[in-house]
Amino acid sequence: MASTSMQRVCFLLKVKADRLEAYRRAHETVWPEMLEALSRHGWTNYSLFLRPDGLLIGYLETPDWEAALAGMQDEEINAKWQAQMKDYFEALGAANADESMQPLEEVFHLA
Amino acid sequence: MASTSMQRVCFLLKVKADRLEAYRRAHETVWPEMLEALSRHGWTNYSLFLRPDGLLIGYLETPDWEAALAGMQDEEINAKWQAQMKDYFEALGAANADESMQPLEEVFHLA
Repeated sequence: MASTSMQRVCFLLKVKADRLEAYRRAHETVWPEMLEALSRHGWTNYSLFLRPDGLLIGYLETPDWEAALAGMQDEEINAKWQAQMKDYFEALGAANADESMQPLEEVFHLA
Repeated sequence: MASTSMQRVCFLLKVKADRLEAYRRAHETVWPEMLEALSRHGWTNYSLFLRPDGLLIGYLETPDWEAALAGMQDEEINAKWQAQMKDYFEALGAANADESMQPLEEVFHLA
C-alpha cells in the first residue's frame, strides 16, 4: 500500500503499432543501471501497462514528481535509454518519452 | 509500496464528455458503504485518473482480481452505485462499468 506522503502519478504514451513486440522485449530486460537510476530518483511501484493498440499507461508513486523527472534528465543512462526508446513512440515530436509524461488528474483514491 | 503478493490491475473506461464534472463530484463523496465494500473485497491502493477527453484510468492492487470483481457483484450497494454511474459512461452496452473492467497487460514493473 502506498505511503500517504507519496504522489500517485499516471501518464499516457502511445507505442507504434508495429513496435509493440520490440517494446515488450525491451522492457523485459531494462538495463540494471537504468533501474538503479529510477529508484535513486524516487520512482517506486512503477508499472507500465500496454493496450493492444499501443496505448501505454504508466503508474508510479514518488515523493516528488517534478524531482523524479528532473533527476532522470541529468542521468546519462536515461539519455541513452530514451534515445533508444524514442522511435518506439508515436507523436512525441522532438521530445523524448520522459519529456512527454503529463500527469493525469486523480479523481478518486481509496487506500 | 505494493506487496509482491498483490496483483496490479489497470483498466480503462470512457466517461461521457458532458458528464465529466458530475463524475468528478460523485467521486469526491463516494458512499462510505461503497468504500467499505471495496475494501472488504480486496480493492486497495485504488485510484481513478481522468483525462480531459473523458478517458478514465483505473489502477488498484488486490490479492485476486477475479475475487475482487466477483465479490462486488454480490454487494447490493455496488448494484446501486453502478446503476447511478452507468449513464456517465460511453459504450458500455448493456453492462455496468464494473463488468467492463478488462485488465491491461503489465509489461514492466519496478518495485
